[in-house]
Amino acid sequence: MIGMSVAWRAAAVGHRVQLVDAEPASGASNVAGGMLAPIAEAWPGEEELLELGEASLRLWPAFADELGRASGLPSGLRREGTLVVGVDSADRAELDSLVDYLARLGRTVTRLTSREVRRLEPSLGPAVRGGLEVPGDLAVDNRLALAALRAAAAAAGVDFVAANAKRVRPGAVELEDSTVDCDVVVIAAGVHSGALHPVLKDRIRPVKGEILRLRARTTALPPPSRTIRGPVRGRQTYLVPRDDGGLVLGATQYEVGFDTEVTVGGVRDLIADAERLLPGIAEYKLVEAAAGLRPSTDDNLPVLGWLEPGVLAATGHHRGGFLLAPVTGEAVLALLHGEEPATEIKAADPSRWGGQ
Amino acid sequence: MIGMSVAWRAAAVGHRVQLVDAEPASGASNVAGGMLAPIAEAWPGEEELLELGEASLRLWPAFADELGRASGLPSGLRREGTLVVGVDSADRAELDSLVDYLARLGRTVTRLTSREVRRLEPSLGPAVRGGLEVPGDLAVDNRLALAALRAAAAAAGVDFVAANAKRVRPGAVELEDSTVDCDVVVIAAGVHSGALHPVLKDRIRPVKGEILRLRARTTALPPPSRTIRGPVRGRQTYLVPRDDGGLVLGATQYEVGFDTEVTVGGVRDLIADAERLLPGIAEYKLVEAAAGLRPSTDDNLPVLGWLEPGVLAATGHHRGGFLLAPVTGEAVLALLHGEEPATEIKAADPSRWGGQ
Repeated sequence: MIGMSVAWRAAAVGHRVQLVDAEPASGASNVAGGMLAPIAEAWPGEEELLELGEASLRLWPAFADELGRASGLPSGLRREGTLVVGVDSADRAELDSLVDYLARLGRTVTRLTSREVRRLEPSLGPAVRGGLEVPGDLAVDNRLALAALRAAAAAAGVDFVAANAKRVRPGAVELEDSTVDCDVVVIAAGVHSGALHPVLKDRIRPVKGEILRLRARTTALPPPSRTIRGPVRGRQTYLVPRDDGGLVLGATQYEVGFDTEVTVGGVRDLIADAERLLPGIAEYKLVEAAAGLRPSTDDNLPVLGWLEPGVLAATGHHRGGFLLAPVTGEAVLALLHGEEPATEIKAADPSRWGGQ
Repeated sequence: MIGMSVAWRAAAVGHRVQLVDAEPASGASNVAGGMLAPIAEAWPGEEELLELGEASLRLWPAFADELGRASGLPSGLRREGTLVVGVDSADRAELDSLVDYLARLGRTVTRLTSREVRRLEPSLGPAVRGGLEVPGDLAVDNRLALAALRAAAAAAGVDFVAANAKRVRPGAVELEDSTVDCDVVVIAAGVHSGALHPVLKDRIRPVKGEILRLRARTTALPPPSRTIRGPVRGRQTYLVPRDDGGLVLGATQYEVGFDTEVTVGGVRDLIADAERLLPGIAEYKLVEAAAGLRPSTDDNLPVLGWLEPGVLAATGHHRGGFLLAPVTGEAVLALLHGEEPATEIKAADPSRWGGQ
């Protein structure tokens, strides 16, 4: 998502862009749920990530509109908002903490009783004991967005190079048997980014996530209209509806290296947690089970900035590749043009690690 | 499985055979677990099915050997035997009933304590409270057997007609746009058999079954070597190992018409039941979730016999398509040649419904 977004934005303002990827859109982005939910996913200590996410979310409606126009395809943006819910007293305490934390940061969200939650989303089960309404937190159909981005990038003149980068240096991307020359390299290779440049080495680790794609059967209650996010017995769970009656259940988190196999235990946990929120999914069709690798950093912030002259990083977006795509595109353009990027970007500069 | 077996056996003895199927091996056989377990699956009141199953099981080793020779491919037969286990006191009572029932029929099986069960299969979990050893009940890798059958049938001269039958009459199979003429039609069309001939109308109903295909990961305990069959809190569950570290979990049973969608609730139940027997599967890879339709009759016996002159039925095998393939092949050959089929076959004759 990040690589194609940057490629499209750069090509759209007149740069000549070559996108080096053997299988574009086959990585974590293809597996993602597509939450655009900086408030619902806020976490104490991650204020810079919250600000970066909010800055990007503000850009999303215009980004989606332009993407739709440029591609002639749906952008996949859904504007129905997000509900954060909880099922037991520990979960409710976590919701209270989130409300207090957001209030201290000047963000107010609406606390709902279980009755109010079910009035908004009648398919939620009796286990749901209360929630928060976050109408500004949105979601995007990841596969629609990727398809639109690819079309928009192609229309803007992006040249797709079907190969994998082995290493990057100023002015060149080295492939298996050849080299792509260029003025500036932008590294946006997800979990593979760490292998491409010494500054990123050991800075980007894979965090595995399994998700399930479901679809409501005619015998089942339809999915909720809002994204449902919740701690369920301590495990973060989300249910992201799609326009076609689809529902994405996510996501497990494991630190197990480069492993993209779906485990039985992961599927079991996803179903159990989601069923507490939405009992009707027992009657849904299981369409797909998949796993992806989030490119994660120690502080959960992405890496956005110059690694050395001629080499830019736009990677390490952890769980936020879709949310942060618009702000990342803007930041890369600013950096390419020698301008100051938005203030929210500064925290993501690789200089935070010292030594650059 | 039945159609290809019959086609191979008939071609192997010199008949000219045309196999009419748009997608051979794409139905219930492709989804099956492949248990060959008449004793482990015996049920009071189904003595004729037990005898038919035992007769076919006796033929399986020679059938598999010949299939391997004729195809040059593995037949998929596994000879490690079957364990029937139970997890709670109701399950144990069910095992006791099965032992008593089999003893009354003159079949003795060995009752095992939980310790003896775990000595045979150390990967079974602490919930398993006892079992029965049935070394003579075997299993077959359904997909290996289907691939071998296809090759053997082709080598024997079977002509594969890639079309679906619409209706059958003496001497002819009617397709969408044409007709296949022949001396004898053998109906072996699984759940679609009922639509092909008036005698079968409303006699064959689809019973949906969902299964999961797993594979042991390097971090997980290897699968059991025997087939594990068990009532788990009243639900019949089986775990059938494959030679490649694979394990098939089956199977749900629903009567919901022609529905082959895998449901979230089905997957949840299969995992929950199997995990009670084999806790290590949480670390297994989920390779595939699939559903098939068993062609079932009211008495669970297949339909093996003449429907009218020129039209034979070899269908309605319910859960026993693989187990009953050898005896079905023999029976069809006997009927084609005007000979008396084995006595066990008589109960499956369509004349049991009267009126033929």
